Amino acid sequence: MLNPERFLKDLHTLRSFGASGVGKGVKRRAYSDADIASREWLASQFEAAGLKSHFDPVGSVWGLSGEHSLLLGSHSDTQPEGGWLDGALGVVAALEIARANQETGGPPVSVVSFQDEEGRFGGTTGSAIWAQLLPLEEADKITDTDGVSLAKARGSMTHLDNGWIDPAQFTGYLEMHIEQGPWLDKAKQTIGIVTEIVGIRELKIVFHGAQNHAGTTPMSMRSDAFQMLSTFNQTLNLALKDVADDKSVWTIGHVRLHPGASSVVPGTAEFMIQWRDGSAKRLDEMEAQVRKTSIACAEDFHGTVELIEQWSIPPTKMSSRFQNAMEYAAKQLSPGAYSMMPSGALHDASNVARLMPAGMLFVPSINGISHAFEEDTSEADLVKGLQVLAATIATLAN
Amino acid sequence: MLNPERFLKDLHTLRSFGASGVGKGVKRRAYSDADIASREWLASQFEAAGLKSHFDPVGSVWGLSGEHSLLLGSHSDTQPEGGWLDGALGVVAALEIARANQETGGPPVSVVSFQDEEGRFGGTTGSAIWAQLLPLEEADKITDTDGVSLAKARGSMTHLDNGWIDPAQFTGYLEMHIEQGPWLDKAKQTIGIVTEIVGIRELKIVFHGAQNHAGTTPMSMRSDAFQMLSTFNQTLNLALKDVADDKSVWTIGHVRLHPGASSVVPGTAEFMIQWRDGSAKRLDEMEAQVRKTSIACAEDFHGTVELIEQWSIPPTKMSSRFQNAMEYAAKQLSPGAYSMMPSGALHDASNVARLMPAGMLFVPSINGISHAFEEDTSEADLVKGLQVLAATIATLAN
Repeated sequence: MLNPERFLKDLHTLRSFGASGVGKGVKRRAYSDADIASREWLASQFEAAGLKSHFDPVGSVWGLSGEHSLLLGSHSDTQPEGGWLDGALGVVAALEIARANQETGGPPVSVVSFQDEEGRFGGTTGSAIWAQLLPLEEADKITDTDGVSLAKARGSMTHLDNGWIDPAQFTGYLEMHIEQGPWLDKAKQTIGIVTEIVGIRELKIVFHGAQNHAGTTPMSMRSDAFQMLSTFNQTLNLALKDVADDKSVWTIGHVRLHPGASSVVPGTAEFMIQWRDGSAKRLDEMEAQVRKTSIACAEDFHGTVELIEQWSIPPTKMSSRFQNAMEYAAKQLSPGAYSMMPSGALHDASNVARLMPAGMLFVPSINGISHAFEEDTSEADLVKGLQVLAATIATLAN
Repeated sequence: MLNPERFLKDLHTLRSFGASGVGKGVKRRAYSDADIASREWLASQFEAAGLKSHFDPVGSVWGLSGEHSLLLGSHSDTQPEGGWLDGALGVVAALEIARANQETGGPPVSVVSFQDEEGRFGGTTGSAIWAQLLPLEEADKITDTDGVSLAKARGSMTHLDNGWIDPAQFTGYLEMHIEQGPWLDKAKQTIGIVTEIVGIRELKIVFHGAQNHAGTTPMSMRSDAFQMLSTFNQTLNLALKDVADDKSVWTIGHVRLHPGASSVVPGTAEFMIQWRDGSAKRLDEMEAQVRKTSIACAEDFHGTVELIEQWSIPPTKMSSRFQNAMEYAAKQLSPGAYSMMPSGALHDASNVARLMPAGMLFVPSINGISHAFEEDTSEADLVKGLQVLAATIATLAN
């Protein structure tokens, strides 16, 4: 029988691995001692639930039903300063459903906690390698901000490695997750059924102007790279308003001026611009505006511009069969309090969707906060999410 | 007799100390081996010209006439990658005039090359300490970008130290310098007579918004600190147009976003804004716009703003007696090719003006370039500047 108390108790036990001591916050970076210990604890829980535990070469930990089954899960690593639910929720919900179904003879379920979803080495690392979107040899060279390579980091889990898991044994993937955004909380909804995971594009843009003395260079004779960036930003904000809908987002989160001195007109402005949307067509339209605006802006200031592609992830549609099953379950268990919605954040489901049908179920994040110690969701919403996910699986088995 | 060839030869000899090997460029940072060697060479030239050479506690090198006299000079240290004329020109012109006047029995002239005008330890360091605008004990604690203190750096010249020079022996200060800006070159003028050295104000501004996930935070719910900065900049550019004249300048040369990651809406934007003008009233008006605009901008974005004063140097009027004498000389020697103009750059004359009447004479910088190996001025213009300065001194003695 699905046991909400056992589920909440397991969530709090998982939280004790790397507990920050600040609220419910957690520090459980991929491959940290706390991360490895928590994965060994998960493996023991999988075994106790009647599943066969298994570590793959990157340290993702699996609980296999041994039959053709749905795969449920998420990740259990956290941001350097993370919340207790981001990832952990989907893993512990999967454990509870697999365990309950073993107990009651319900449909078999396998479980996974992918490694390094939070991107100590890039982002959704464990599932990307498993889905063959990122070759292991390439990934091994990626270094974290301290210069440690993935090859070196995963060396600390080699003794647990039992090889890769064949995806052919799974009929589909379902991931429960906190929303990490404000929509459900604001709309007082309990369940979000994910229609697609938005695509991401990112460009590095470098404006080149003329470095000069900030005292002796008249305003009219400057080619100031920061002014190019600022004008680009304002012009782009207006241009994107015609293209975007209320879920489209774009961000300039990193800026570096050269030489970066208060008495020098900056000769170079280097920055990252990232935009996300559920529609590939809109991503294209936004990119056209970014490119057009940056080139026009450099010309206006008698400068030049470089555009360097960083990454591009297409939007990922979630399985409509899974969406329908979740909607059917939500209608019974959470009537009038569920929404169909895109996911603005990347998830392991983006990668797994390359291998099999995938679906995602969201519960609210209080005030939309995530990637912070304050991250939280009411226990009533956590349990409701668990129940809707379990009912979805029962529906899919019929 | 004023000897232009000897003057140019000395300029090229001084250039050989720390010659960069790139064009006429020089690397002669304050207290470097090249700097100390060049100052010892200058002392020997002062002696050969009949002056008494003298080093003060910070390493400024003096050639004293022994009588009540005008003081002429500038500085001989350079930027890490500097030009051959910035500072050096005023020192060598002073040497030539002092030497010529000793030979011909003209009015006595003393000479100085101030230490660290280029600001390894702040800016106009040697003259600021001499003019008691910066206490030596405080200055000694200033460290360069490698963490070396002024106390430690000037230790390498202690063996030359003969104590402070009493300013009462000087009747005024005249400094010849390259313009370091484009005005004279653009206007095809040979001589600039400096009316004032512009004042500088600088604020560190910190916008605080809300750090958030760049994928899940809708545009309408963001308080993005970079957007505050960009909007502040655009609004300020418009506001200052009503206040500024064609010589007013303002610059944002340093920007730091926190956390500075492409997937995070920046919660903080910290930057420096600096403005310069010859009028104290206009500096005030510009400051009012900066403050008003930043506060309004933070409010618009539901953020907050901190304004932290960095430095404030008032505009420094040049002696009108010296301006008149230079104009009289320029009228004779460079008719129709001289201009009255403010200096947009700081100079040792700003500090010395606190002690005695001060004046400055500019010659053109080709394409306005300075603080770079490419810095240059035609030899004809260098000699014309020397001649106007010498004639000015003769005029003042009458």
